[in-house]
Amino acid sequence: MSSIFSDRISDVPRSFIREILKVTVDRDVISFAGGLPNRDLFPVEELKEATMKVFDLSGAESLQYSTSEGYIKLREYIADRYMEKQGIKVSPSNILITSGSQQGLDLLGKTFLNDGDDVIIEEPGYLGAIQAFSVYRARFNPVPVTEDGMDIEKLKTTLSHSSPKLLYMVPNYQNPAGISYPDWNRKALAQVLESENTLIIEDDPYGALRFSGERKQSFINYLPEKTIMLGSFSKTVVPSFRLGWIVAPTHIYEKLVIAKQASDLHTNYFCQRVVSQYLNDNNIDHHIEKIIKAYGTQCRKMLECCKKFFPSTVKNTKPEGGMFIWAELPEAMSSMDLFNLAVKDKVVFVPGNPFYVNRNQTNTLRLNFSCVDCDTIETGMMRLGKAIQELMEKKLC
Amino acid sequence: MSSIFSDRISDVPRSFIREILKVTVDRDVISFAGGLPNRDLFPVEELKEATMKVFDLSGAESLQYSTSEGYIKLREYIADRYMEKQGIKVSPSNILITSGSQQGLDLLGKTFLNDGDDVIIEEPGYLGAIQAFSVYRARFNPVPVTEDGMDIEKLKTTLSHSSPKLLYMVPNYQNPAGISYPDWNRKALAQVLESENTLIIEDDPYGALRFSGERKQSFINYLPEKTIMLGSFSKTVVPSFRLGWIVAPTHIYEKLVIAKQASDLHTNYFCQRVVSQYLNDNNIDHHIEKIIKAYGTQCRKMLECCKKFFPSTVKNTKPEGGMFIWAELPEAMSSMDLFNLAVKDKVVFVPGNPFYVNRNQTNTLRLNFSCVDCDTIETGMMRLGKAIQELMEKKLC
Repeated sequence: MSSIFSDRISDVPRSFIREILKVTVDRDVISFAGGLPNRDLFPVEELKEATMKVFDLSGAESLQYSTSEGYIKLREYIADRYMEKQGIKVSPSNILITSGSQQGLDLLGKTFLNDGDDVIIEEPGYLGAIQAFSVYRARFNPVPVTEDGMDIEKLKTTLSHSSPKLLYMVPNYQNPAGISYPDWNRKALAQVLESENTLIIEDDPYGALRFSGERKQSFINYLPEKTIMLGSFSKTVVPSFRLGWIVAPTHIYEKLVIAKQASDLHTNYFCQRVVSQYLNDNNIDHHIEKIIKAYGTQCRKMLECCKKFFPSTVKNTKPEGGMFIWAELPEAMSSMDLFNLAVKDKVVFVPGNPFYVNRNQTNTLRLNFSCVDCDTIETGMMRLGKAIQELMEKKLC
Repeated sequence: MSSIFSDRISDVPRSFIREILKVTVDRDVISFAGGLPNRDLFPVEELKEATMKVFDLSGAESLQYSTSEGYIKLREYIADRYMEKQGIKVSPSNILITSGSQQGLDLLGKTFLNDGDDVIIEEPGYLGAIQAFSVYRARFNPVPVTEDGMDIEKLKTTLSHSSPKLLYMVPNYQNPAGISYPDWNRKALAQVLESENTLIIEDDPYGALRFSGERKQSFINYLPEKTIMLGSFSKTVVPSFRLGWIVAPTHIYEKLVIAKQASDLHTNYFCQRVVSQYLNDNNIDHHIEKIIKAYGTQCRKMLECCKKFFPSTVKNTKPEGGMFIWAELPEAMSSMDLFNLAVKDKVVFVPGNPFYVNRNQTNTLRLNFSCVDCDTIETGMMRLGKAIQELMEKKLC
């Protein structure tokens, strides 16, 4: 029967993370595996008030079909915010509201990719992007990223033997590695890309969640005609509304609107109105500061615990924001073996495997700190440290 | 620059209806062009109450990320409803919540269609389906539909020279033609399709909105392993929430979930909770009866006006439900020419063109009756009748 399906759907990797999350249903298990924002910080009361207002002021209208582009006031807010926070001039007519950033990726795949087209992705890279572009049968060209940003020499090599249509990146507090590209690296990358036909997709779901370091430059400042920006309210307001956006040059925007129409006509309009009302009535910066304070504290605690409980041969990134730390075991060790030991000790994480397109075995792991308080981090990291020790001893036997 | 785009996106027809709707912004223009449910009938207060309850009873949880399959209680409700209303046994584990029916179409295209795969569509057929399947570069095989259902001989001919993967249909109160397949026609179609590998996509957004005639049998009763059903809350509750669903056999369901994940992770979870709460606390049948009463009255009025104001050479369908009447001008006349005359007389409709995949000129038109009261219908249809007369006289000159 399998022949009834499209070729593309067979190429899409299943979400390994979903499988892992099934293990973590047990309440005794401490989970660093999630990728969720902390629900204790959701502005529930404020959203409730905004929702009441939308019902009272524009009930029927806000419940009707709407435009594919999205609610104009919300797009104006997003444009204003780019100017206010980053000095970036964006027109609301270049902003398309999407059903989460994930749909942004789907629409870009739809609009740009023919079977076998080359796409540069980060290594390690965001699983959701790998899934979305797999649907359009991209040929992935992974380029390593570290705390020094994207590997420029490797990028040049890749460009010398292929003509990638897209380069996908999460340059701020990346998922999964928590790294940020330094400004010098961005500048150098822009210079390399200037003469290429490759479009940059700058995905920035965590950009507002910076708890240390400096805000870095968007690629739109270097290559405005070649940069497509993705944004999201999932990490700053709430995820269940599925509200994200794409900023794209006009000739691309028009195609994206066609793709959007064919995909779901438009994004949930009622929730666009609610979030717009919420942003109008509240100081989102105060709210974001609360998130930053919590995530920053939890991140620092987790970094301390890495030092305290992990053998010195285990390396880890030092995020300036976001929700994730990335750890690297000594080369011969498998993070999947570690996972199997750790789950018995009642702590879980995501092994690095799903963040690579061409590896089944890795020595890396993703640790999430947004959803766990400091005491839980202490306990969980102690358990994880023990599991690492145990694995090392096994290897020595 | 156009070469940067995917081949597929160039194949997608732009929504002609959107273009037309721009004309209708003028308040003096009577519009039979829309495809919207009547917003005066939206259960605003009831939804507001349900929303408050969701905030109060499960605020943070309902605002967090959720599962790709959709809210289990909503899926259980849908399953119960199939049993209660149609005696169809469906398991919630075969129901996938989608971001509107339109996304259902996108996911089916994604999951089944390779470039150039044959798809049977109705002629005239639903524009949204043509758009969604165009993205996956379907080769369309239109088969005529009338008030006698789908043309069986034409279907046989099509099946004799192609192997379509999918047959897409809206057998109840179809968009655009308002027709329903009689039970004898469904039975005969099922017999023809029994030995084929073609899957039936039965899209049923209007099924609950029957104001005359009898409820017809779903194809799932004839060909359970070959039928995929699409449903929607857009016409019975509200459209802006973008809530629809797919019912599919298990081996197909699993692939659809992968496609859903890659497309937008999951459908707006908050609104799934709200609608589930609303359906739990209210008698939806009472609400649907109100809609049926209004649409039925408006449809009868419009049918009367067809008789009263249109020349006898103009034919029209007699819907038993839904939101549309389909009219056919004498063969030599162009509905686009009529549109250009009618808009001057301040009445608009949708010319038939976009509902065909292979015609630029048609003599057919779609008339919407859901959003116009009886007085407006009288005035608008009088204007339209005049425009038809005028066009006929021009032709005679």
